[in-house]
Amino acid sequence: MDLKALYKLGYGMYVVSSKKGDKINAQIANTVFQVTSEPPTVAVSINKKNLTWEYIHKSKVFAASVLCTDTPLAFIGRFGFKSGRDTNKFEGVSYKLGMTGSPIVLENTVSYLEAKVTQEVDAGTHTIFIAELVDANVLNEKTTLTYEYYQQVKRGTTPKTAPSYVEVKKEA
Amino acid sequence: MDLKALYKLGYGMYVVSSKKGDKINAQIANTVFQVTSEPPTVAVSINKKNLTWEYIHKSKVFAASVLCTDTPLAFIGRFGFKSGRDTNKFEGVSYKLGMTGSPIVLENTVSYLEAKVTQEVDAGTHTIFIAELVDANVLNEKTTLTYEYYQQVKRGTTPKTAPSYVEVKKEA
Repeated sequence: MDLKALYKLGYGMYVVSSKKGDKINAQIANTVFQVTSEPPTVAVSINKKNLTWEYIHKSKVFAASVLCTDTPLAFIGRFGFKSGRDTNKFEGVSYKLGMTGSPIVLENTVSYLEAKVTQEVDAGTHTIFIAELVDANVLNEKTTLTYEYYQQVKRGTTPKTAPSYVEVKKEA
Repeated sequence: MDLKALYKLGYGMYVVSSKKGDKINAQIANTVFQVTSEPPTVAVSINKKNLTWEYIHKSKVFAASVLCTDTPLAFIGRFGFKSGRDTNKFEGVSYKLGMTGSPIVLENTVSYLEAKVTQEVDAGTHTIFIAELVDANVLNEKTTLTYEYYQQVKRGTTPKTAPSYVEVKKEA
């Protein structure tokens, strides 16, 4: 079995955000996808260790901001490689609070959606949150950042807590 | 709410296949994604009306062949816009039966995976099949076909049974 086959799956890149009381947090995720069109329903897979998981699990709402191709690596690093337990990830970032109270990123973003969780599916290390759309908007006509582009062109790396992390052993 | 925001989500394009006894069938899907890495687990959202849904639901196995960018539209049409109830979709197609008995497409394919279903999540019109990998391989280093590329460059269309179908009303 060659797990590198999983690298070939296609994904976008998203800032997935939520709230807890008056606190907000967000993380990078690549597993946002539409589940049904009637009613418009999406799902996202989030690692249980992440602070954003705790916020979504408690508030039952999240937003997903779809990143564009020219998103700077530092912007992805801010949301993807730091924990909201140690830092306010939104300091200096342009955002607005959506109708669910979740923060929507307004820079490097093509479109966004907000959703209310209707089902939580336990998938071991991750939870798949299934959620009905309550708002969605297109901000511009930029191109969506793909995970493949992020990996190959930007030579980005994947943290171990991502669902798409594959441990590739280097040959000695 | 502008549902066109959902068009901006990033996906690959896959031939998702299964079996029922000695019968095989497959369909096009864009919602194959990795859920966890330990154990390697994927998920796919399939419309309950589709024959492939019935096969996966009964056999509890499926394969996903990751399509490459230069896949001809006619090849996608064969699997995506016809029903296996009326036609043998694999006639004339190069494939092999994998270890689960599901057919793996060997043309226009970058990599493939086979999986055994561990959970079925009812999402209304669709079922999300969560499944543990039993085999996976990379066939070549071609580029994965993205749904965006398929939509925009190939001017492909989306059947109403797809999870990503969005009814866009034309102005009078």
